[in-house]
Amino acid sequence: MVKRLTDEDRHAALRELPGWSAAEGREAIARTFVFKDFNEAFGFMARVALIAEKHDHHPEWRNVYKTVEVVLTTHDAGGVTARDIDLARAMNAIAAQLSPR
Amino acid sequence: MVKRLTDEDRHAALRELPGWSAAEGREAIARTFVFKDFNEAFGFMARVALIAEKHDHHPEWRNVYKTVEVVLTTHDAGGVTARDIDLARAMNAIAAQLSPR
Repeated sequence: MVKRLTDEDRHAALRELPGWSAAEGREAIARTFVFKDFNEAFGFMARVALIAEKHDHHPEWRNVYKTVEVVLTTHDAGGVTARDIDLARAMNAIAAQLSPR
Repeated sequence: MVKRLTDEDRHAALRELPGWSAAEGREAIARTFVFKDFNEAFGFMARVALIAEKHDHHPEWRNVYKTVEVVLTTHDAGGVTARDIDLARAMNAIAAQLSPR
């Protein structure tokens, strides 16, 4: 089983993840992505969904038109793990190819 | 502009929409769909996204693994309109073709 990151490791990982921060009130990381429109926001979600499914590690996310709010945590581990950091990094890479602002 | 439904019309429409109810604390309608797994949940979202985009009327929704929580309202009209009812009906039809429970 993948191990929960220590507070120190989580903070270090967040420093390398532009846009992400500690989620409020729970051990998780969060980012809000804002795209140009719904087409772009859902295109982002579709690409992320394929990656999430491939790695069997899924986001909690909320979409309202051009906005996608994401929370990542690893339920089995009771906190943030390397799997969350990997998925966050992949999301940033996909968003960077579109036009987040 | 599409007109906001009266309370009476909204209640009447909800009676014809299995699974949907008035959203708490705002003039909107809501339903939580629970699918078999993420594949099915996101498949549902992808089909709904195409319909939403086609009609330029988009849901507020939150996905956590196999669950999709939806809220529909028409911001321009300040409440629930026929566009929300139509989208809710389309969502039920798509979900019925998958395996909601």
